[in-house]
Amino acid sequence: MAAPQRRSSREIRVGGIAIGNGHPVSVQSMTNTDTRDAEATLAQINRLAALGCDLIRVAVPDREAAAALKTITRRSPLPVIADIHFDYTLALAAIDNHVAAVRLNPGNLSDREAVGKVAMRARAAGIPIRVGANSGSIRPALVREMMNKGLEHDDAIAEALVLSALRECEMLENFGFHDIKVALKSSSVPVTVAAYRKFAARTDYPLHIGITEAGTPARGIVKSAVGIGALLLDGIGDTMRVSLTADPADEVLAGVRILEACGLRDASPEIVSCPTCGRTEIDLIGLANKVEEAVAEIKAGGRTIHLRKIAVMGCAVNGPGEARDADLGIAGSRAGKVVIFRFGEIVGAFDPAEGFEYLKMEILNHSKFVSE
Amino acid sequence: MAAPQRRSSREIRVGGIAIGNGHPVSVQSMTNTDTRDAEATLAQINRLAALGCDLIRVAVPDREAAAALKTITRRSPLPVIADIHFDYTLALAAIDNHVAAVRLNPGNLSDREAVGKVAMRARAAGIPIRVGANSGSIRPALVREMMNKGLEHDDAIAEALVLSALRECEMLENFGFHDIKVALKSSSVPVTVAAYRKFAARTDYPLHIGITEAGTPARGIVKSAVGIGALLLDGIGDTMRVSLTADPADEVLAGVRILEACGLRDASPEIVSCPTCGRTEIDLIGLANKVEEAVAEIKAGGRTIHLRKIAVMGCAVNGPGEARDADLGIAGSRAGKVVIFRFGEIVGAFDPAEGFEYLKMEILNHSKFVSE
Repeated sequence: MAAPQRRSSREIRVGGIAIGNGHPVSVQSMTNTDTRDAEATLAQINRLAALGCDLIRVAVPDREAAAALKTITRRSPLPVIADIHFDYTLALAAIDNHVAAVRLNPGNLSDREAVGKVAMRARAAGIPIRVGANSGSIRPALVREMMNKGLEHDDAIAEALVLSALRECEMLENFGFHDIKVALKSSSVPVTVAAYRKFAARTDYPLHIGITEAGTPARGIVKSAVGIGALLLDGIGDTMRVSLTADPADEVLAGVRILEACGLRDASPEIVSCPTCGRTEIDLIGLANKVEEAVAEIKAGGRTIHLRKIAVMGCAVNGPGEARDADLGIAGSRAGKVVIFRFGEIVGAFDPAEGFEYLKMEILNHSKFVSE
Repeated sequence: MAAPQRRSSREIRVGGIAIGNGHPVSVQSMTNTDTRDAEATLAQINRLAALGCDLIRVAVPDREAAAALKTITRRSPLPVIADIHFDYTLALAAIDNHVAAVRLNPGNLSDREAVGKVAMRARAAGIPIRVGANSGSIRPALVREMMNKGLEHDDAIAEALVLSALRECEMLENFGFHDIKVALKSSSVPVTVAAYRKFAARTDYPLHIGITEAGTPARGIVKSAVGIGALLLDGIGDTMRVSLTADPADEVLAGVRILEACGLRDASPEIVSCPTCGRTEIDLIGLANKVEEAVAEIKAGGRTIHLRKIAVMGCAVNGPGEARDADLGIAGSRAGKVVIFRFGEIVGAFDPAEGFEYLKMEILNHSKFVSE
């Protein structure tokens, strides 16, 4: 259960990353640099890769951007996905410049023939295509049709998203192309979750999940965590993007944290800390942040920490229980002291600053250089 | 679907707030002031109430804190819940000082008789008791017993949480007391969600949901949104607390946003905004933040905004579709201009600063003082 039972889906490969068929759920983001500026785009990709991004999408709005892909794909540490709208010749150029996948909306290409040309070029290159429907681009007539069938408004949108996506798959299937992943996006969390559940039950295509236009981080991270998290806990979703009006680094960090919360990416060491309350006699917020920073610093130094869980607790009510369950624990005690726990045993009582230093030393003692 | 189908649960009342039986899911937080300092505690409660908090819990670690409840309950704008551990006489004192509910862990009271005394005093006062199990305080022997029955580790913890909570309910039921809500808390999201699903299927007690010791906001908001959101989307949960190692204001804001994301609290106006990408020619992040601030400012001024959705979009790809679906929209256009949409119609193209002022004026035009 720590890792949810995953829906069985067919496998596709985007560069070196396998998607579907039980493979780890990958985190995507999208560059917001000018794609024509290959150096700026590569610098951003490198930064996102270091934060845990697995796949990167770049907008390809014109021929110059498509040409820049040659440099970007050669030097990117991550598989590059071309984001194409309207002009199918840009998809062909992107494929020729070695992108690992193409995202397009067959519905906004010029005609059936254009879709076929992209499908044939993608098959020749051995790369998948991501299609999908977005509530911003589904036909209002289709939503009305679903409502006339008795579905209420939100359910009608979810069904329309599913039907739109199935039609896009069919456009590719008609050319014998099945190397597909699918997204169904709405800015409404309940609509999105309903649409993915419906689609997941009807096909075995791997799913790219996310809440579209989720907004600024304050609201967007919550919306994305609710929607993506609910799907992942049900085993639905093979790759994901948190879509924020923010630096793409925030998207990657949120994506990684959602996977960790769902038990789908190793969070080691997990740092649990209780809320402060009227019982707290120590600076718990400061202490929890210092422990998080110490862990981040040790990991950024290239070391792996071999601890499952570190507990930072304010007082003795739940503290000892949680600390006992953790590999290392620090809990507020009487007279402003803290108590350190190690694998369930009390090490001793310390002044807070001293206790923190002791804890940091213990964390370091349980870490190794990755190459060791 | 915008509001999930809710599990049917029995109704309890905490002061003026009804919990269960389909009533709105309420947001709780817990003060982190010294409860003995009634003025500081009341100042914090007032601040949290203004942010959307519905119920407030305060720690009652000693007699002086219990005595301060007299002042706190008289002047608090929110129903006050006393958090009691170990000493049942503090629960009795809190009830005498007019708290609206008591949270206690019968398992850590001294004996059966103590539980009975609290139950009888609560019944006389007509207030409910929240009980619950926490993975930090369940008996390791019970987890082992579940594992011996063939459950894997996490599932054994979830089942042990459920059995522990049921036993706590039973301790109160034995005194004819059924005015109960229940929490089942673990710092693991999958364990928490599994435990609530199991418990929800076996009883009709209203549920207080949350992820315990979720940590600092960066991780804790994601963990809480995933766990609480997944349950709410399934209709499980009648009141909730986001538990963060942070200012309780952050808990309330996150709680409100989770409800909004699930369609369980009116977010009007919902502000959707797309991520930036290589196609964006305007300062979209700045614009989205400015629109959010303008809306917050108008609402803080005591006005209600009669708009369902405002869309802030970077470009013309998904922009017009989303903007058409929104009551008001602003989308990046060619040559650094923005286009304003109003109820699906294009109003015109503007320079960004001018467009923002126009949008703000339109928002103001669609707002009214709450008293009007």
